[in-house]
Parts: sequence; structure tokens; C-alpha cells
Amino acid sequence: MAGSSFGTLFRISTFGESHGKGIGVVIDGCPAGLAVDLDFVQAELDRRKPGQSAIVTQRKEGDKVEVLSGIFDGVSTGHPIALFIANENQKSKDYSHIKDQYRPSHADFTYDQKYGIRDYRGGGRSSARETAARVAAGAIAKLLLKHHGIEVVGYVDAVKDIRIPTDFILKQREDIEKSITRCPHAPTAEAMEALIRDTRKKGDSVGGTVYCEVNNVPIGLGEPVFDKVHADLAKAMLSINAAQGFEYGSGFSGTLAYGSENNDAFEQKDGKISTKTNNSGGIQGGISNGEKIFFRTAFKPVATLMQDQQSVDKTGKAVTVEGKGRHDPCVLPRAVPIVEAMCALVLADHLLRSRVSKLANS
Amino acid sequence: MAGSSFGTLFRISTFGESHGKGIGVVIDGCPAGLAVDLDFVQAELDRRKPGQSAIVTQRKEGDKVEVLSGIFDGVSTGHPIALFIANENQKSKDYSHIKDQYRPSHADFTYDQKYGIRDYRGGGRSSARETAARVAAGAIAKLLLKHHGIEVVGYVDAVKDIRIPTDFILKQREDIEKSITRCPHAPTAEAMEALIRDTRKKGDSVGGTVYCEVNNVPIGLGEPVFDKVHADLAKAMLSINAAQGFEYGSGFSGTLAYGSENNDAFEQKDGKISTKTNNSGGIQGGISNGEKIFFRTAFKPVATLMQDQQSVDKTGKAVTVEGKGRHDPCVLPRAVPIVEAMCALVLADHLLRSRVSKLANS
Amino acid sequence: MAGSSFGTLFRISTFGESHGKGIGVVIDGCPAGLAVDLDFVQAELDRRKPGQSAIVTQRKEGDKVEVLSGIFDGVSTGHPIALFIANENQKSKDYSHIKDQYRPSHADFTYDQKYGIRDYRGGGRSSARETAARVAAGAIAKLLLKHHGIEVVGYVDAVKDIRIPTDFILKQREDIEKSITRCPHAPTAEAMEALIRDTRKKGDSVGGTVYCEVNNVPIGLGEPVFDKVHADLAKAMLSINAAQGFEYGSGFSGTLAYGSENNDAFEQKDGKISTKTNNSGGIQGGISNGEKIFFRTAFKPVATLMQDQQSVDKTGKAVTVEGKGRHDPCVLPRAVPIVEAMCALVLADHLLRSRVSKLANS
Amino acid sequence: MAGSSFGTLFRISTFGESHGKGIGVVIDGCPAGLAVDLDFVQAELDRRKPGQSAIVTQRKEGDKVEVLSGIFDGVSTGHPIALFIANENQKSKDYSHIKDQYRPSHADFTYDQKYGIRDYRGGGRSSARETAARVAAGAIAKLLLKHHGIEVVGYVDAVKDIRIPTDFILKQREDIEKSITRCPHAPTAEAMEALIRDTRKKGDSVGGTVYCEVNNVPIGLGEPVFDKVHADLAKAMLSINAAQGFEYGSGFSGTLAYGSENNDAFEQKDGKISTKTNNSGGIQGGISNGEKIFFRTAFKPVATLMQDQQSVDKTGKAVTVEGKGRHDPCVLPRAVPIVEAMCALVLADHLLRSRVSKLANS
Repeated sequence: MAGSSFGTLFRISTFGESHGKGIGVVIDGCPAGLAVDLDFVQAELDRRKPGQSAIVTQRKEGDKVEVLSGIFDGVSTGHPIALFIANENQKSKDYSHIKDQYRPSHADFTYDQKYGIRDYRGGGRSSARETAARVAAGAIAKLLLKHHGIEVVGYVDAVKDIRIPTDFILKQREDIEKSITRCPHAPTAEAMEALIRDTRKKGDSVGGTVYCEVNNVPIGLGEPVFDKVHADLAKAMLSINAAQGFEYGSGFSGTLAYGSENNDAFEQKDGKISTKTNNSGGIQGGISNGEKIFFRTAFKPVATLMQDQQSVDKTGKAVTVEGKGRHDPCVLPRAVPIVEAMCALVLADHLLRSRVSKLANS
Repeated sequence: MAGSSFGTLFRISTFGESHGKGIGVVIDGCPAGLAVDLDFVQAELDRRKPGQSAIVTQRKEGDKVEVLSGIFDGVSTGHPIALFIANENQKSKDYSHIKDQYRPSHADFTYDQKYGIRDYRGGGRSSARETAARVAAGAIAKLLLKHHGIEVVGYVDAVKDIRIPTDFILKQREDIEKSITRCPHAPTAEAMEALIRDTRKKGDSVGGTVYCEVNNVPIGLGEPVFDKVHADLAKAMLSINAAQGFEYGSGFSGTLAYGSENNDAFEQKDGKISTKTNNSGGIQGGISNGEKIFFRTAFKPVATLMQDQQSVDKTGKAVTVEGKGRHDPCVLPRAVPIVEAMCALVLADHLLRSRVSKLANS
Repeated sequence: MAGSSFGTLFRISTFGESHGKGIGVVIDGCPAGLAVDLDFVQAELDRRKPGQSAIVTQRKEGDKVEVLSGIFDGVSTGHPIALFIANENQKSKDYSHIKDQYRPSHADFTYDQKYGIRDYRGGGRSSARETAARVAAGAIAKLLLKHHGIEVVGYVDAVKDIRIPTDFILKQREDIEKSITRCPHAPTAEAMEALIRDTRKKGDSVGGTVYCEVNNVPIGLGEPVFDKVHADLAKAMLSINAAQGFEYGSGFSGTLAYGSENNDAFEQKDGKISTKTNNSGGIQGGISNGEKIFFRTAFKPVATLMQDQQSVDKTGKAVTVEGKGRHDPCVLPRAVPIVEAMCALVLADHLLRSRVSKLANS
Repeated sequence: MAGSSFGTLFRISTFGESHGKGIGVVIDGCPAGLAVDLDFVQAELDRRKPGQSAIVTQRKEGDKVEVLSGIFDGVSTGHPIALFIANENQKSKDYSHIKDQYRPSHADFTYDQKYGIRDYRGGGRSSARETAARVAAGAIAKLLLKHHGIEVVGYVDAVKDIRIPTDFILKQREDIEKSITRCPHAPTAEAMEALIRDTRKKGDSVGGTVYCEVNNVPIGLGEPVFDKVHADLAKAMLSINAAQGFEYGSGFSGTLAYGSENNDAFEQKDGKISTKTNNSGGIQGGISNGEKIFFRTAFKPVATLMQDQQSVDKTGKAVTVEGKGRHDPCVLPRAVPIVEAMCALVLADHLLRSRVSKLANS
């Protein structure tokens, strides 16, 4: 219960560090009988892995997923599914020079203070490498959702001040993967890519926002009053490395409207009750209303720079943290599958939880 | 486990509906030996209660807190603290006309679909009246934090497009309560008040953002990787009625900076390691670093309007939802104590959780 | 999370002390749409309440249940059901003489040490009065089970060395309530009653065992590997005041048989797979197999005696604890509804949990 | 949350099946800074492993523990400790003949019914092989307890009707391992061994009871009202394969005494408050009182026999389940380290939980 588990019925526990043997996850609560397409799980990991394009970190990791338990004859057994991704790229290099340094805006200082011990070979547990486990588990969640016709789609909608047009609507999922930025609007994607390449040259980093939507959500997911769907999504998103903000539906910009402008009027359409607008982002009273769920997550520019930075060491002495090694000038493209994975985990959990809300189902 | 509990070690479970007997909360996990100042608890409830000023809803509720258990001779016993706030204002009026109507952007439709039953006398469980229980429990959390020198302070920093100046810094807590808007910057507060009064006349509603900060936070609160302090704050905030967005530290605007601008350099000051800037909002790697924690929460304009609105009833038939009864044109001033309460609950929980992270403490 | 909650999906949190305002419980997770017969809930409380017969404590408590939330128009809403039972019998007597005394085999000493504070007016939170909340919640669980055709029945099968014949089989539930001992075997019940009356005269106490069975259990309840049905039943039973032992199926006596004698052979009967014997107590691999679930719980003779006892006070000084006040020479008859309630809570929880074990259901 | 996790603050999640890649466990909540002696962990596993003596199953498993995460430079980091034990003995034999058979008193039938799928190559998840993960995690818990001076010791006190003398008191821990039965009373051990050898020849199995005690327990462990130490111990024990009963302190035999005989009088000894007798088994009101904690767990004779047994297949057709393969005529000797492990996990969890019960500590 020290923070490495997430979810209630579809519950995951992750383990592993950036420079240890590998990263893993145990899923407890995946219903039995789900066909698990491991190629899909691997493909999701490939979308997250380093070195996949010219604009992300060039660190090479195979990120091959290994099933340790819970799947028999290609089908989930109802028992814990354990997945493991070995670290291949653990160079036995000398870390003694950074052992006592606190890198700016990293977790070095807080980990050292909290635990009295720190894996100085890299981020250790605080490394974004841990998110590989989330993506693997999220892939299983996506398969469960897919079985129920639910689809999660994310893309990059802003890098620094380069933003997809407000009226942009995704036409087909394929457009996202067309650009290495994972921005489906071609002109914006080009500008983003140019900015990221330029930022890499400067040894600097840039942040941005990821948009994510969920289609074909059944009505009734979400548990008032604390486990509202959007509250769990907010936690899920903010738990991702470098995330700093979250909004769903009309979000922060919705605060600029009057209630009469922001309210979503109900109407009947094709024999189904729906809303004319969707400022509620598909969630009312914390419960999905059948409309599209959508939200945005803000990621700061990552802390690792290829520039020297002033800092202190353990004793408080001023030191220069050198900017060397590999570098990810913009994590946004790789954040997309992570956002989707965390979203899928939240939805899969709420799907299962919703099964017992009514006596008729119970 | 149907969503009405929050927290791990300092854990609350709320119950009650807007038109039932009352609203209550059980706190399981408050350490024994805490002096519980019930006047303070009541004062917090008074800050949230309806009818407290000319710009909020005129519904009258005494909101008197009653202790059902867990406090003996003015001190917490280590056992569940149950607090109850009776509903005084349950008019036995006729609700038959709205029984089958779905109010726009309320939870009527989703509750009906999810549960197959809905307390049509008001919001029922979805009513913001439930937050009274949070404020009561949050007051106990605040007392625990205060014992450790930690202070939580919130205020309104924007109502619609009227926003406190970016460079505003709170000088003294007292400035907040000087205005019925709970905005501590007098000129902004005046403009906000005028806007809210005008909005009331129109029968409309406006939203905005609440800023909250926590001072004197010990280093080491937060549990990687999912229960990061800011992830739990995000969930806490988004679980409040009408909340639509959350950001901490440099938040969404931090996505517009380069990493070299956003990183917080460490320095030694007065023999203590601290950061020169605080774009991290007091949290690094999900763990408090000793700097001020701060964040913003966006609230949409509330859905209840004093205007007729088009909607449908249970059968999908078009109906007009009449705008009558009492009306809260802007919940922001009353949201401040709720934001503070939820923040205090998160911090109190993490304070306790942090006690067992090191062998030296265990 | 300090120990006052029980269950996962059908989850209860109890609060209250013996000499405070009352005892209560919040049930979070009861499915919406359950018709709640409050007369039944009250009747269950009446089976537990003190003063109901000549052989139990003569303390008078009305034990009237009050619904604070979660039930609307006689039906569960899917939201927390809060039930409260006011303490009527709080005499404002002088407790100063026992304030610092540690009664033998009570929780006075351990509570004082653990919490540094103790409600010396009675057992406080450690009083068996807390079980009233369990019986109230258990009654709701029984209603949910009854809706699914499942029935929980308990009775007293031993008081001290007076034991129901091994080959006894319950014919009709009504036989249990015929005797104030709640032993359905008349000759044994008579002997028990005589022993209890005699024990009361001596100012002493006696213990015994309660047998409980569950009929018409669906196949598939129980979650390997830790949340086996019988593991959760064991915890449930041992959490009752004065419980010291638990066994299910062939239990301790099953250790005296060979495997070839203890195994339950499968057979097909009436087109249904069942077992010829039921040494497994209806549970195999932690999962219900459709046969009758049955188990026994051992209760020690309660610690309160009407005899003077040697002990110490807070300072370690030898004192005489006087035997005065009211006295329950044998709690077994009143333990029956508590055992049933805790059993019903376990089964209701597992019933809901079992709903998401298969993709077909999820 | 499907049942494969145990504990609150010192929380474990196990995974793996008997014929999959292996068995593993993730411990979330081990405080940072604990020196982890892996030789000790391995030694504990060796006490559980098959093939260790002539009277247990001759299946060969190396049971080598591998650390996947959470330990750096020999010390716990405060992050999840993942341990893995590969299955070495997965023969690729033909299981088609037993694929559809339901072995008597195994989990074949219930798993098939609950999940609609069953790993027919062996017990799968229901196999006692899963307990290897518990022993590994329990070893870490023992190290944490040892750091605080607490020691857990178990031994076999009965096999079928051969029982250690009632007045037996363990003199030294070493006596336990002297006999392959793990019964420290030599004459009893001899008789047990003879019985087990004889039982093996018959192709039958025998059960028995394991005694376990915890020494040097601090006062104050246990969380009323549901998470009493003995309630959690009961669940822990009953969650072990083949366990059918649990008693602590005077247990079932305590029901035969009068309260005046069973009560434990307090006295002051060496400046410390203690009890003259210990019928409470070191626990009062669910909280440790500083005396020795002790309890007994009953294990049925295991279901696997080397005899043909009548049963049915999936379709309900009568079949003969052949008694072949390897065979463990008596699991008691191997159950000892499992009982100790589960006990250590309960105590470690409560040790951490007890740290936040008082304001002084919080």
C-alpha cells in the first residue's frame, strides 16, 4: 500500500527500476476468458519505447514483454496476470560523480530525504521507465474495453505554444501515427517537429498537452462521490511523470462561459437520450452519460537537459550538474500511449465496478 | 467500496442526501490524542454553508455539527469519529412535476440510468450538500496538520474572466475573508462581486478558479508511483461538485516554457536545501520537497439556472425545466473551504503514510 | 483504515462506543433497488439486544434502529446506507473508581497503552455493544442474500461441556428460537439453560460454540488465494468479541481422518454435480461448490464476572476489581445473530465480487 | 482486488501457477533501509520446498529466489520488492486424460465453474506451490520483525491423532529442525514419522495441526474492531491450502472453562505490567498485550491420494481418477514455514499500522 497499486477491481501493481533487472506489473482482477493478443501488447509498448523516432530519446530498449502468469492457451484465467519487461540497456558505467548530486526538478532530493537511500544509477523508481509497466497493463485493459466496444484514442494537441486548431476533429485514428509527433493535424505536426528538433539542438526540452477521448462508453460508469470517473482520470493522469495539469469537458476554458452557455441540453435522437453539446465531457455527476469522454493532460518540459545546471549535492554544496548522456527533448509523442493506458485502466476498472450498482445485475 | 470513501490511513466515508435526514462522515484513522476544537469545526462549516452572504444561495441551513463518536473529553480516542449535520430545510413540497425531468448538466439522467432509482426531491446524493461532510472531516484534518505546523489556505482567484493579478501574493490570511467573494485582492474582489450580482439578476451562473496553497509542509509526503501528492490532490479536487480542471506548480502555463526556464535550481539557504524558484509547486517525483505546495482548481458555472431550459423527461419527451427556487449564481466563494478541506484530507493522509517509509521510523 | 471497516464491495464501517451517543454503521456498496424491510432489521437487533431473556444481561437498551441515509421510498438507492442506534442507557454514574483500573482479560490495558487514552466509562469502542451495528448491517446483507435465495442460519451448539449431539440435524429454523438458549435440540437446551442459571448465581461466566450454516449458496463465491470464502469467514468470526476459534467443514476433527476418509467424492445427482459427503464445508479451493457452507466459532467465557478479581491499576499497583453492575453469564445466545450477521456480510460481499470473475459477466 | 493481495501497509500481491513460468510476489510497503539477507530468504524457501526429506513429496524444485526489484546494495529502497521463483519442473507431459476430470476435494470443479477456464496441467493457481511466494515475502517480513526483536516460531504439534504432550514447552528453536517432521518433541516426532511413512505406503494422506508463537511482541499491535491481530491471523492461516481451523490462546478448549478460570489476572513484575496466565494468547481486545502470541492451525489430510477415486468429469459422467504421480502424504512439516510466513506478514503489517495510532507518534 506504499503507492504502487492503482485501481479497485481491475487493479495493477507495478514494480521495477530504471537500472535494475526490469519493470513489471501484476494485474489482479482481469476477468477470465479474455483473449489476450500479445502482439497488441507488444505494439503498445513499441509506441512508448525510446529510440522509436528521430525526435525522442535515442536510448535503445527492446522492451519485449514476457508473460509470467495468468494467461493460459492465449486466454486470461481470472488469476493475476504478471508481465515483465527486462532492462537491456543497463550499462555498468561509473555513476560515482552523480551519486551525491541532486539534479534540478528531478526526484533525487525528495527520494533521498524520504527513504534515506537512493538508487543513484538513474531515476530508479522515479524514472519514467516505470510507465512501460502501465502501458503493458493498459494494453490488457484496452482489450477488455474493446471486447465491450469501447475505444480509447489519444494524440498530442500542443507542444509548447504550437497548438492544434481548436476546431480540429479527429477523422481517423490512423492520422495520429502518421507523424512521429503523434499530432494528427499535419501542418501543426510539422511545426511541432521543427520545434522539437530545434530544442534538441539547444540541449533544452519542451512540454505540451495530450488530448484523449473515449468513444462508445456505456452509460453508468463512475462511483459517486469520490470515485467519479473524471476524478479517477485526474489522478491517473497526474500520476504520470511530468504531468502538471488535467481538465475534462470544457475544462479551464469552461470557467469563462455562463452556465446558460455551458449547460448541455438533453434531447432525444434516434430513440436515445443524448446531449446537444458535450461541455460535460461525457460525464455528469461523476458518471458517464454515453457521450464521448474527453480530457487534456499538461506535461511540463522534462527536467533532463543537455546543458550544465547549477545545483547542490547531499551536503548542500554548490555543484554543476553536467548535461550529458541521452536526452528526450519532448516526451509528448511517447506520452500518448501512456495517457491512453492510464485512461484504459480507469475505464476498465469502472466498467467492472459498474456491474454491481443495481440489484438487477447483482 | 462504492465510491464514498477517501484516503488510506486518514480515511473518511461520507453518507447522506440533500433531502434526507442529514449528511454525515466517519473518519477512521485519526490518531488518538488530538484535541478537537469543535468551534473550529463549526466555523469551517459556517464558511461553506448556504445563506452566508448576499451573493450565494439564500437557502437556509443551520449546518450544526453533532459528534456521534470518537471524541472523549475533547480529545480524539483513535476510534472512528462520526460527525452528523442534520438537514433542517427539508420542505415537504411537491416534487411530482420534476420527478421525471432530467435537468441539463445535472446528475438526474446518469443516476437514473445507473441505479434505476433517483431521489427526485433534489440532487439527493449528487447534491453539493454532501460537501458539508467533507468540510467537517477536513476541519479535523486541519487540526491534525496544525499540530504539525502545516497550514492550508485557499482563495478565489478568478470568477469568469475576472482574474486576480498574476503577480499577486497573499500577505495575510485575513484578507481572504474580508470580501464575501473570498478573493483577497480588493479591486478584483469588487469586480467579481459586481459580476456575480449581475449574473444573479440574469438568472445565470458563473464559474472560476480557486487557488490553494499549503505552507510549512515537511519533506517526504507522497507515495510513488500512483499516490503522488499531486495525483491525490487532483483526484480530491476533481471529486468536488462542478470541478473541471486542476493544475499544480507551473501547471498548464508551464507547458509554454523551456525546460531550462521551468526547472527549479537547488540552493543552500540558511543551512537548508531549497529551490530558487518553485515551478514544481512544492512536489518533485510526487513527494513534497519542503517548498510551498500550490495548485488551482477550475469550477464550471453551476448547472442550476433561474431560466427555463429545454430538456427531456424519462421517456425522452421534450420538456421545459423551469428555473425556480433558490439559486447560487457563483459557488466559488463557498468552494474555498471545500477545496481547503479536501486538500487537508490529502495532506493528513500522506502525513500518516509517510511515517512508515523508513526503517528508522518504522 | 484504522480497522473499523469490513468487506470489499459490500463494505461496512462501524462507529460508536458503549457510553457515547450511540452505535452506527455505514454500508457502502449495497446495490440499488433492494427493498429494505426495516421491521426485519429491527427484529434482528432485538435478537441481539440485552435484556431479552432471563439468562442474558439485564441491561436495558431499546436498540431502535434509525435510518440516516441511503434508503428512499423503502428501497436502497445505491448510496451509503447509514444506520444509527442511540444509546439509551448511559447512566451518568461515577466511574472514578475504575478509571485507572485494568479489568482482567478486558481491553482496558491494551487500549490505554495503544492510544494513550481510554474511555473508562465502559468498554468504549471495545464493548460488544459495537456488534449492534454489525447486526443492523448484517440484516441488510441478509435481505440481499434472501433476494438471491441464500439463507444463513446459526444456533448454539455447545455451552461449556454441554454439547448438542454430533448427529443432530436442524429440521426447521423455528426450533432455534424456541429456547432462550438458541439451541434447537430441546434436551441440550434445557441442560444449557440450567448451567447458565447456575453460573449466573456463582457470578461466573461460561463460553461455548456457535454453529452456522448457509444454504442455497451459488457455486463460485470466493476469491483465491487470500480471500477464500472460509478465510474471510474466519476473520469475520474472530473479529467478534470473545471469539477464540473457528473451524469449517470437518475442521479440527478432520485432522483425525485419513485423506481417503475426508475427501468428498463427486457424483451427478438430478443432473447436477454435487458431492456425496461434505467434509469440505461447501468450499473447495476457497470457492463455494454449491453444497451447504457450515462452520463453528468458539467463544470464551466473557471476562466480566460478578466476583472480585485481583488486578493492577495504571501505575502497576495491585487493586481489587469489584464484581458489580450487570452481568452476562453466557453470551452465546446473543452471539447467534452476530455470527449470522458477520457471515451474511461475508457472503454478500463475495456474491458481488463473484459478478466480475468471468468476461461473460463483466 | 481479485483476492491475490494481503495486508494493508506491508502489502503483498502474489502471482503465478504450478505449471507456468514460476511463482512471484510483489511487496509494497517494506520500509526503506532494511538489510535484506537473501541467504535467509533462500533458506526459508528451502524449508518449504518439495523433496527436502523422505516423508514429503519427492517432486524436485530448485526454488531459487530471484530479486526483480526493490533492493539496492543489499538494502530495501522503500519501493516494491518483487521476488520470483521459476518453476523448473514443468514436464511437458500429456494431461489430456485429466483435462476434464474433477479430482475429489480439489479446486478443479469450483475453478471451472467460477472462471469457465481451468489450467488442467496441475492445480494451476490453486496449487500449494503459490505458497512459495508467501514464504519468500514472509522471510522479508521476518527480517523486519527481527530488526525490532520479534521472533516467529512454528512447529508441528499433531499429525492425525499423534499429538505433542499438552504440557510441552519449546526450549530451543533448534529442536524443531532436528526431526524431518518439524515436531520438536522427539518421541512424538518419531511416532509421527512412522505414521507418515506408513500412510505413504497406503497411498493415503494425513493431516494435523501446526502450533505457532510470536515472542517479544510490542504492546499495541492490532486495529479494532475488525482488524484485530487474531482476526487477521485467522484469515492468514485459513488462506493457506488445506487449512480448516484456527484457534488462539485457550481456543476451543477455553470454552470448557469458567470465566474465573480463563481470565488472565494482571500483575506487576520487574516494573512491567504483565499477566499471570496467558489464556488470551497475548491479545486482548484485538491488541497485543506484550505476552507471547500463540495459535494453532488445523490442516486436513491433503486431497491428492495414490489411490483410485470415484468422481465425475465436466459432463457429470462417472470417472475414475487415477492415483499416480508424486504424492505428499503429510504436508504438515512443509506447512510450518508457511504458517510462520503468514504470521510474520500479519505482524509486520500491524507493526507498521501501529505507528500512527497516537498523535505522539504521528
